[in-house]
Amino acid sequence: MTGPKTGPLGLRAPKGKRQYAVGVARSQQILETARELFGLHGYRGASMRDIATKVGLSLPGLLHYFPSKEALLEAVLQERDDVDVPWFEETWLEIGSFRQAVRELVRRNMSAPGVLRLFVTLSAEATDPSHPAHTYFQERYRDSREIFARTLALAQERGEISAHAQGTVLIAVMDGLQIQWLLDSDFDMLGELDRYLETITVPTRKGKRSR
Amino acid sequence: MTGPKTGPLGLRAPKGKRQYAVGVARSQQILETARELFGLHGYRGASMRDIATKVGLSLPGLLHYFPSKEALLEAVLQERDDVDVPWFEETWLEIGSFRQAVRELVRRNMSAPGVLRLFVTLSAEATDPSHPAHTYFQERYRDSREIFARTLALAQERGEISAHAQGTVLIAVMDGLQIQWLLDSDFDMLGELDRYLETITVPTRKGKRSR
Repeated sequence: MTGPKTGPLGLRAPKGKRQYAVGVARSQQILETARELFGLHGYRGASMRDIATKVGLSLPGLLHYFPSKEALLEAVLQERDDVDVPWFEETWLEIGSFRQAVRELVRRNMSAPGVLRLFVTLSAEATDPSHPAHTYFQERYRDSREIFARTLALAQERGEISAHAQGTVLIAVMDGLQIQWLLDSDFDMLGELDRYLETITVPTRKGKRSR
Repeated sequence: MTGPKTGPLGLRAPKGKRQYAVGVARSQQILETARELFGLHGYRGASMRDIATKVGLSLPGLLHYFPSKEALLEAVLQERDDVDVPWFEETWLEIGSFRQAVRELVRRNMSAPGVLRLFVTLSAEATDPSHPAHTYFQERYRDSREIFARTLALAQERGEISAHAQGTVLIAVMDGLQIQWLLDSDFDMLGELDRYLETITVPTRKGKRSR
């Protein structure tokens, strides 16, 4: 929920102070609309003109905030990452269980299937080196691997998670189960995730493990 | 490497016997070209006209073999599945190790990154219920879950795999690691996969496990 930033794709920061407050509110509105339309029609299917119309701006007006569709996309993606990482850490501290916090993160993702679909589709499209979000996703996954490695190391120190747990694999399990769930809402994503988490969780107190 | 079939999207089977042999060879050539162009430009980016030109057919000529782009897509996807399942079973029997056979399957996928990218992108796009391949991928994942469940049950009977291994999660791990590898060819997909497989493998003879 932070304001706009300058990213590798060249998102323009608003100028001046009063303009800044107005700019932040308007940027936020644009981001929400972009997230909605990208989620509904895909990145390639939603046009800057549609987004401008929906927020009551002209196309040049929209371009004042986000100089290109790529910059807008990057801001939409970045915003979610900016929110999700601290949210996960806070939830983990609050609940006191890594396993439950991961479940809550996935449950939270499930409440916005449009955004989830946007991420799944974009990360797949972006495997094409000529896609505008290629570098973004490449760096995002590198960052995610670092973050997950640090998080798992911490969970291991706290005696919650087994030494054999792999951050790369936890990311893959979450990504892969999401595809199965988005294709088939009857698929029990949370149940399957939880059974996997059980295999990497160190049993505590009344904890019962299946092996 | 079987001939064309009638699928839910209405792939037309060639008529007559002599025509059949010619048709099969030509169908095969069309499938190879479609796989190549879908892999290069994506399903939406490659046109039926491009595919027709590349195989030396007119557009109506191509439509004689595959009545629509959806039918051609379905045939490309189906062909891979028709080949992969028996290939995996034979490889497993030959090597005598489930873990090694899964590694070999992934190694084989890595030799054709264009096809892999096609699958990753299409399965993501197809999470949209209005996508022409939505039902195909929905059914494909349901089938895959059944096949993996049966395969893991067999591997458990043979004493190769622990009882806690989940077919849904193995599919997810393979899908998810593929995205990370397609985005970043330095990512050690095989190494990460193998470390995961180790955690679900029952140690035999000199087998050493990390937990």
